[in-house]
Amino acid sequence: MAASEENLRRALAEKQASVDAQAETVRALKSSPDAHQAEVDAAVEALKALKVEAGAAARRLEAAISSNTDGASSGSREAFRQAVVNTLERRLFYIPSFKIYRGVAGLYDYGPPGCAVKSNVLAFWRQHFVLEENMLEVDCPCVTPEIVLKASGHVEKFTDLMVKDEKTGMCYRADHLLKDFCKEKLEKDLTLSSEKASELKHVLAVLDDLSAEELGAKLKEYGITAPDTKNLLSDPYPFNLMFQTSIGPSGLSPGYMRPETAQGIFVNFKDLYYYNGNKLPFAAAQIGQAFRNEISPRQGLLRVREFTLAEIEHFVDPNDKSHPKFGDVAELEFFMFPREEQLAGKSAQPMVLGEAVSKGIVNNETLGYFIGRVYLFLTLLGIDKERLRFRQHLPNEMAHYAADCWDAEIECSYGWIECVGIADRSAYDLRAHSEKSGVPLVAHEKFPEPREVEKLVIVPSKKELGLAFKGNQKMVVEALEAMSEEEALEMKATLESKGEMDFHICTIGKTVSITKKMVSISMEKKKEHQRVFTPSVIEPSFGIGRIIYCLFEHSFYTRPSKAEDEQLNVFRFPPLVAPIKCTVFPLIKSQKFDDVAKIIAKSLTATGISHIIDITGTSIGKRYARTDEIGVPLAITVDSTTSVTIRDRDSKQQIRIGIDEVASVVKEVTDGESTWGDVMWRYPTHSVLHTEDE
Amino acid sequence: MAASEENLRRALAEKQASVDAQAETVRALKSSPDAHQAEVDAAVEALKALKVEAGAAARRLEAAISSNTDGASSGSREAFRQAVVNTLERRLFYIPSFKIYRGVAGLYDYGPPGCAVKSNVLAFWRQHFVLEENMLEVDCPCVTPEIVLKASGHVEKFTDLMVKDEKTGMCYRADHLLKDFCKEKLEKDLTLSSEKASELKHVLAVLDDLSAEELGAKLKEYGITAPDTKNLLSDPYPFNLMFQTSIGPSGLSPGYMRPETAQGIFVNFKDLYYYNGNKLPFAAAQIGQAFRNEISPRQGLLRVREFTLAEIEHFVDPNDKSHPKFGDVAELEFFMFPREEQLAGKSAQPMVLGEAVSKGIVNNETLGYFIGRVYLFLTLLGIDKERLRFRQHLPNEMAHYAADCWDAEIECSYGWIECVGIADRSAYDLRAHSEKSGVPLVAHEKFPEPREVEKLVIVPSKKELGLAFKGNQKMVVEALEAMSEEEALEMKATLESKGEMDFHICTIGKTVSITKKMVSISMEKKKEHQRVFTPSVIEPSFGIGRIIYCLFEHSFYTRPSKAEDEQLNVFRFPPLVAPIKCTVFPLIKSQKFDDVAKIIAKSLTATGISHIIDITGTSIGKRYARTDEIGVPLAITVDSTTSVTIRDRDSKQQIRIGIDEVASVVKEVTDGESTWGDVMWRYPTHSVLHTEDE
Repeated sequence: MAASEENLRRALAEKQASVDAQAETVRALKSSPDAHQAEVDAAVEALKALKVEAGAAARRLEAAISSNTDGASSGSREAFRQAVVNTLERRLFYIPSFKIYRGVAGLYDYGPPGCAVKSNVLAFWRQHFVLEENMLEVDCPCVTPEIVLKASGHVEKFTDLMVKDEKTGMCYRADHLLKDFCKEKLEKDLTLSSEKASELKHVLAVLDDLSAEELGAKLKEYGITAPDTKNLLSDPYPFNLMFQTSIGPSGLSPGYMRPETAQGIFVNFKDLYYYNGNKLPFAAAQIGQAFRNEISPRQGLLRVREFTLAEIEHFVDPNDKSHPKFGDVAELEFFMFPREEQLAGKSAQPMVLGEAVSKGIVNNETLGYFIGRVYLFLTLLGIDKERLRFRQHLPNEMAHYAADCWDAEIECSYGWIECVGIADRSAYDLRAHSEKSGVPLVAHEKFPEPREVEKLVIVPSKKELGLAFKGNQKMVVEALEAMSEEEALEMKATLESKGEMDFHICTIGKTVSITKKMVSISMEKKKEHQRVFTPSVIEPSFGIGRIIYCLFEHSFYTRPSKAEDEQLNVFRFPPLVAPIKCTVFPLIKSQKFDDVAKIIAKSLTATGISHIIDITGTSIGKRYARTDEIGVPLAITVDSTTSVTIRDRDSKQQIRIGIDEVASVVKEVTDGESTWGDVMWRYPTHSVLHTEDE
Repeated sequence: MAASEENLRRALAEKQASVDAQAETVRALKSSPDAHQAEVDAAVEALKALKVEAGAAARRLEAAISSNTDGASSGSREAFRQAVVNTLERRLFYIPSFKIYRGVAGLYDYGPPGCAVKSNVLAFWRQHFVLEENMLEVDCPCVTPEIVLKASGHVEKFTDLMVKDEKTGMCYRADHLLKDFCKEKLEKDLTLSSEKASELKHVLAVLDDLSAEELGAKLKEYGITAPDTKNLLSDPYPFNLMFQTSIGPSGLSPGYMRPETAQGIFVNFKDLYYYNGNKLPFAAAQIGQAFRNEISPRQGLLRVREFTLAEIEHFVDPNDKSHPKFGDVAELEFFMFPREEQLAGKSAQPMVLGEAVSKGIVNNETLGYFIGRVYLFLTLLGIDKERLRFRQHLPNEMAHYAADCWDAEIECSYGWIECVGIADRSAYDLRAHSEKSGVPLVAHEKFPEPREVEKLVIVPSKKELGLAFKGNQKMVVEALEAMSEEEALEMKATLESKGEMDFHICTIGKTVSITKKMVSISMEKKKEHQRVFTPSVIEPSFGIGRIIYCLFEHSFYTRPSKAEDEQLNVFRFPPLVAPIKCTVFPLIKSQKFDDVAKIIAKSLTATGISHIIDITGTSIGKRYARTDEIGVPLAITVDSTTSVTIRDRDSKQQIRIGIDEVASVVKEVTDGESTWGDVMWRYPTHSVLHTEDE
């Protein structure tokens, strides 16, 4: 708990106690026949003053709570979100799926501008990652047989804890109910003691670690009931989040809709390694749909049942995680939030990536390289670097096998949202599939010349052991063979010096005596031509929908109309992301201008620039506002048959330009070869602006 | 049956009869004590001669069967396919999914080159259709609630007939078993009478129309058993081809993985129409995964359980299906296969599209426009126009509501494959969803000024009818209201002249007498301000995987290596489709050349050109062959530090070019701005070729 909040809770409790005491005094005076009226009045005034002070203390505490929660007050955050979401839904960036059938929670459609933004983001992802690093892109099905997801652990562990309304059967996520309860208490209940507040904050901090039993106990302790009906709740139990189905007509082959795209890459490792000329490192990538049957989805585009993932699996030699291009990103500086700072209650600080790696804060260069590339990717898309941080996983968040893990978190009206996970998953996934499938998913390092290595060789004499231990022979043989090098060498020495040794066999729970004849132990020299090992995998995994939603929020602003009678919405998308690159407006209804607009449209199509023509008779100001609202960077107004104006969305500046040049200038700006500032200088600015209210 | 085949079957049967008769003669002579040896010898010689003739007749029939089946003999088609598929799988264009777990039938992964081809095809599709026509692209989820697919008819009708092995439970598609049986008989059984052959051919022709009972009867009649075990088969029954799942944790919301992407567009019609300014026509488009739980998938990439569809729904006023851009495609000439030609047993003929529309062979201009655009799309991708035809659906293939339907069929080693369907689906889909959801999915045509229209108004008098018909009143009311305009006007006239009229009520199977008091019939004048109607939809639907597979076959060829000791595989992909646009080879292992290669690679990346560097020490000829095999159009060989050679894949010609210019020239050719022929003239050809065997 922040120190100031705790002090404020104590101060409020003290003021409240003073108010109570003074109220008691007033009551006593009023009921006393001896009290003078003046004395009573003075006491009442004092009570009023104390109440005012207590009120002020309560407001200070409220302010502290909401600023601790997220910087802005939760009311203004929600108002902002509502403005963004209204615009997004009204302009069909996205819409609840199957709306005419009253929709399905957690499923959304991207409408035309949203779909264009998404396809721009994916095209840039391909350019920035796949093409730049020569990654091997693959495309695997969503339908996945059970055995693959058993190997990966999803069948057993991809669950959330669920509780049911005991009467209606409605399902809830157990941790959400507990989280909502704690947050609500902390934000709204100002009478909460600072001890109780501490306890609730602790619950929030350890929420993800609670077992079903612990969660159930907390729900009971706090008397939490079903939010919709106030009915009692069942005990929490695990619900698997995969959509299950059946492959083929027999009903005997269970399958699931994949919960991530990564497994498709892992099971192909052997072929991909061969395709790469049996060389490490290399990366494979996949863009595709993934599915999670959320118990009760909320938070709009942030928690959905079907979503697009873009995942990279970069395979490296575990002994060498350096990266040849790390130098390209080493000097980047951005907000990082290492484990230590989180545990110390500090906040994210700007750090130079190269230092974070050299100090060992980031585990290795390859992990660091991807953190840097992800930073570039997100900020080039238009994510505000002040609201982007890389947060290291705490030990309790990380899988036991992971070497290190960082999330790119983006701040939006819902708080800090995990949008990209960048994890060093070590050899876990390849090992799991090797074991389950029996196909070794390994790499080979050929030595320039054979190396001589010493290897321990243990050869139990089955005959002697059979004579000595009869039915237990097999267990003794296995125990001998399973000895570590240290144990074996100790036994060798003991047998050589004493001729026999006591040996404990766990599997039969007995200690037996082993003699020299029973086993031969030796260190033998062998020539090895290669090293065989399971590669480590470093996995940057992008939640495309989440990135896009945060981008919507970071790009949105409002500005007054020229007449200052309304607020106009604008998305400041960079051209790279903008759903449509430019619009063409004939200034007034006229065949001549319409013809020019068509000529320009044709040249834009030929140049591959997406555009729309708006020939409605609406005022030019309204038409500008309409395309600002879907983030179109440039607007071409046809006001003559020889030249036209181009208007920049954010600065509202206009230049005049010949019809022949329009497409190439628009391409220059929207391809990112030039900025608006660059082209501004080359052309006359249009002095009589087509104003926003024309 | 082709006339020649029938004649050959008869000829063979006659020869066989002669052989049998002569054999009988020989037997008789041999057993006769009177026969001279010379006589016997002559008869044996005659028998031998007849056998030779019968053999020749059998071979002629075999040849006729295989040429009727597909032009090339089925053996050579299979050998060709094997060569293509081997190359595709070896170079990871695609691979069976989950191979290390022994795979799942009907699921395939695209490996790196296949994935790149696919993403190129989709990018071109977006450019050629969405951008060119300003279509509204949407992106809807695969998980679909049951109600949507009930409305569309998929829950009830999206089935195939299945039979089960009665002992093992193995499942088969009933029509496949019957088809295989008929084809096998026709191809292999030369003793088949021409009547029987006709019957089997008829079965093949009507296969898609057979009911479960008819299919079952045929299977029994022909004694068809389970192909793997020869066990008896169950009767055929329908199996729904959708993958079923459950949405949310309750188990009470059934859902399916969508079998097509179109429904996502239909349910959004209202919003999309509004987005388009409430104007028709407009088109919406969607690219995405679709799923069909095939009973027993075969034919590699052609029949799979998960695939990418690209679908367009073009909404038009049913009264005006003209298209403003039809002139752009009207002069195209290509193979069309109208219904009449199919029924007359003719084959596809080249037709000019404009004529096909003006003669009414193609139903309307909009349908024709899309047929033309699809033709351009496929041939620009590299589909051979000689092996592409547009086949009109026969009446029995077409849904009852469809106005017209044409399939783009591409010929490959599996025969003619439906790759794109272009259907005028009339108002069916929008009406179905309007009814089920209660949300009217309609368009409005505002009249410039209100129109006066006459409308028939029928008002039955429930009171009088109740008195007269008691319990049958409701049926009579309904029958009166359901009268057509003609019937109603006739009744009006009769009632006015005679006061009563006989009226047959189907629902109660009686004729009753209707009097003047019982019903009022009038034509009323009404002012209408707009026309409200359900738009027609014209749907071009692309099976992307099938197009890509056919493209692989059409692009594949082999040529001898320079030493003529082996056949080398080449894919002649146009640059648009090629998975990688160029390769960079340092001629020999050298730091200098490697550095130049890196500089060139960097400039290619900056220009956005996908490429690979191959610095293995292999001979340059081997390296050329390796990239020809994945269809890379250009190869850059670094043989100096100032200039390099560029080699064209198909002509094997080489030009010499300065290092600075490489990226821009490669871009020019791979973007399609210039052809190889164009740039050949601008640069010196490289006289000392890096030969294929260097």
